[in-house]
Amino acid sequence: MNKTRAVYPGSFDPITNGHIDIIKRAGFLFGNLTVAVIDNPSKKCYFSKKERMFMIRKSIGEAGIKGVTVDSFRGLLVDYLRKTGQNIVIRGLRAVSDFDYEFQMALMNRKLYGKIETVFLMTDAKFAYLSSSLVREVARLGGDVRCLVPKVVAKKIKKLK
Amino acid sequence: MNKTRAVYPGSFDPITNGHIDIIKRAGFLFGNLTVAVIDNPSKKCYFSKKERMFMIRKSIGEAGIKGVTVDSFRGLLVDYLRKTGQNIVIRGLRAVSDFDYEFQMALMNRKLYGKIETVFLMTDAKFAYLSSSLVREVARLGGDVRCLVPKVVAKKIKKLK
Amino acid sequence: MNKTRAVYPGSFDPITNGHIDIIKRAGFLFGNLTVAVIDNPSKKCYFSKKERMFMIRKSIGEAGIKGVTVDSFRGLLVDYLRKTGQNIVIRGLRAVSDFDYEFQMALMNRKLYGKIETVFLMTDAKFAYLSSSLVREVARLGGDVRCLVPKVVAKKIKKLK
Amino acid sequence: MNKTRAVYPGSFDPITNGHIDIIKRAGFLFGNLTVAVIDNPSKKCYFSKKERMFMIRKSIGEAGIKGVTVDSFRGLLVDYLRKTGQNIVIRGLRAVSDFDYEFQMALMNRKLYGKIETVFLMTDAKFAYLSSSLVREVARLGGDVRCLVPKVVAKKIKKLK
Amino acid sequence: MNKTRAVYPGSFDPITNGHIDIIKRAGFLFGNLTVAVIDNPSKKCYFSKKERMFMIRKSIGEAGIKGVTVDSFRGLLVDYLRKTGQNIVIRGLRAVSDFDYEFQMALMNRKLYGKIETVFLMTDAKFAYLSSSLVREVARLGGDVRCLVPKVVAKKIKKLK
Amino acid sequence: MNKTRAVYPGSFDPITNGHIDIIKRAGFLFGNLTVAVIDNPSKKCYFSKKERMFMIRKSIGEAGIKGVTVDSFRGLLVDYLRKTGQNIVIRGLRAVSDFDYEFQMALMNRKLYGKIETVFLMTDAKFAYLSSSLVREVARLGGDVRCLVPKVVAKKIKKLK
Repeated sequence: MNKTRAVYPGSFDPITNGHIDIIKRAGFLFGNLTVAVIDNPSKKCYFSKKERMFMIRKSIGEAGIKGVTVDSFRGLLVDYLRKTGQNIVIRGLRAVSDFDYEFQMALMNRKLYGKIETVFLMTDAKFAYLSSSLVREVARLGGDVRCLVPKVVAKKIKKLK
Repeated sequence: MNKTRAVYPGSFDPITNGHIDIIKRAGFLFGNLTVAVIDNPSKKCYFSKKERMFMIRKSIGEAGIKGVTVDSFRGLLVDYLRKTGQNIVIRGLRAVSDFDYEFQMALMNRKLYGKIETVFLMTDAKFAYLSSSLVREVARLGGDVRCLVPKVVAKKIKKLK
Repeated sequence: MNKTRAVYPGSFDPITNGHIDIIKRAGFLFGNLTVAVIDNPSKKCYFSKKERMFMIRKSIGEAGIKGVTVDSFRGLLVDYLRKTGQNIVIRGLRAVSDFDYEFQMALMNRKLYGKIETVFLMTDAKFAYLSSSLVREVARLGGDVRCLVPKVVAKKIKKLK
Repeated sequence: MNKTRAVYPGSFDPITNGHIDIIKRAGFLFGNLTVAVIDNPSKKCYFSKKERMFMIRKSIGEAGIKGVTVDSFRGLLVDYLRKTGQNIVIRGLRAVSDFDYEFQMALMNRKLYGKIETVFLMTDAKFAYLSSSLVREVARLGGDVRCLVPKVVAKKIKKLK
Repeated sequence: MNKTRAVYPGSFDPITNGHIDIIKRAGFLFGNLTVAVIDNPSKKCYFSKKERMFMIRKSIGEAGIKGVTVDSFRGLLVDYLRKTGQNIVIRGLRAVSDFDYEFQMALMNRKLYGKIETVFLMTDAKFAYLSSSLVREVARLGGDVRCLVPKVVAKKIKKLK
Repeated sequence: MNKTRAVYPGSFDPITNGHIDIIKRAGFLFGNLTVAVIDNPSKKCYFSKKERMFMIRKSIGEAGIKGVTVDSFRGLLVDYLRKTGQNIVIRGLRAVSDFDYEFQMALMNRKLYGKIETVFLMTDAKFAYLSSSLVREVARLGGDVRCLVPKVVAKKIKKLK
């Protein structure tokens, strides 16, 4: 098992500047990072899996981040990890945060797959308020999201309205 | 810009005794207070915008509160503030509270409109448990909400069942 | 009023090993414990009231717990308590927990029915992550829930997929 | 082992109206309640063990509470429980509270003595802010504590200044 | 009673950039702001009352803030408010914060003096980590605090070592 | 800069089973881990720096953990990191935890040294209650700490009483 590989799973609906911040930090720690889009048919997303993966790839490129793979998976995260032979999971923590939820998920994942190790990284304080759902809410109400998300997302959201 | 003006935004679906408590406190601090009902077509409310505004006006009257205007707005709060030339926002904090959510919203609003200042007031400890959604839940299950909401709301909820 | 009677209300959709842990603890404290399934028609549950009651009875039996009654109720918990002449309510607290929500409900119940006393018990630390909704999520995504729930639930969930 | 016996341990330095509220609630649940004053020589208290026990006895009397024993112990709570053949511990939770600390202690006690069961009761919302240390602070700064503590404590604090 | 007057109480041992941020925000809301240094002989401070007041005055001047008075008081905050005929108290909230403590104090103050109104303002997210005690700790360990505190404080701390 | 190096700083007064759990997890992620004992003369510790380092080395050996160096430092953590050319810091998070404190420290460290990256790992749920100060408290009150700390610590604490 290669300790330099890690997975950053999420809905990324859409990717925000806060996610980009975590990807940079995780990429610095682990040479081989995979951003893994959750493809859960029972959970309705605003953007399709394909769109979300496109926006991640594009914004990673725009941000000049190298060595990051973008993938997607169905089913449980722990099954995806087992199949791809990985066990390090990256999660971002925000100062204003759903910490309890993250802890619950990490403990559950550890129960389901003992080898998993969740690594929590702290976003920059300036992204403390940022979440995908808040970005969608601001966009839906006609707000300008250009300071919240990568360029490609800002464009995409505009078109969709 | 007139510093004695402030806006207390919310869904008020319906207004509760906890909201009335905050309106009294905010009205004491700011001579010119506007209670601003969020009119968000994509969010389903139990009461119509018109009903919610009527119940606010009526219960403010019943409580003997003077100098409060009731308004409504569509779109982002920050856009409403810009249009009406205001920048002070009132939010209530409960001892048992969604503090994290309030902080996230306040930081996001500050990011979208730098001039905004969110003023948090603390409800009386005796309203610590009170929320509009809990009031609706109690009413739906056949409970008596007369000790939780202004008279006009208690009547209205009864009729709707 | 008999002080040795207590009610443990919940959706139990489905019952988990964490619930069983609380039932054991509550049964030790109160000789006469009722597990009361909330039968709220407006809230969509995964399992029917009948199925949920069956699984509770069966798993209590499997766990060798004696002297526990399984019941269900519609409407407000406080009305159920009044009708059955009870006033002690059991709630479980998890280390990773919705403590604020529990407190809000307990205060609201106390407001609606002054005689009510909510008794909080702490689940074993090893169930800190466990909730019915997380169990359903894991099952839906094809995960193995046998280490999370009683045998009867594990079987039932498998069949339903 | 008699399930109707419970211990409410604490420093009670001094006893407050919030403690009295919990004693009433616990006394309603358990016929045989012991208020157990922690007598820890290495922790400096404002009042002596004797004074703290006197004030508890006196204020329980003033409040008309029956069937409560006042005791004290040195060393670990779990050792006191073992010696006296008890295993139910009462702790009060305040809406504005050191919940994390209480949980940590309860888990540690369970680790040291598996049979222990900590029962958390919720104080009245109107005592949410109340603690012995805050009472001492108010008294030291010349404030009137008569609305915060039983009569006997208010008198005693006055004398000590 | 003049509603445009407010008090911002604290130890300010020493004043930090986070305090300056709150003073600016409070000064914008209330034309007549008093920064009130707590002079509590039983609590050992690093800087004397005189030094703390000097540093506040100097850094307010450096920051170009007008219309702010610096005062000090002994005893209870509520007694100081009564004596000076004021009832609005400013407190800063940090995203990473002792929110529970602030709430407890605000509720206690309201209990001791019904007319008091505590107004919570949110510091800039970039000061989320900042506290006087952390500044003292960094300084004691030989760190550079120039990015954390006003110029005058940075100089003073250097001299004292 | 070698990305496989990380530092786990702390007082370790004394090292607990929870610390050992984090050291194992961190050692799995980073090939080259340094446990760095904070040697702060102004903070009184129960064990000397020498004793703390000895107990760490000994218990790491007992636990069969390889490739971990034990070091100590005076002054700021960020200065120690700069001097030794490192920038990855390990911190453990407990389900029942001082999360706010950890976040504050991590943000402050990032402010003082931009290159620092704090990696939070989650202890096993079964260590949720464990802290060095609680271990010392239990030992002082005559409790048995053998289930809480490595063998060498249990012996040492016994001798010191």
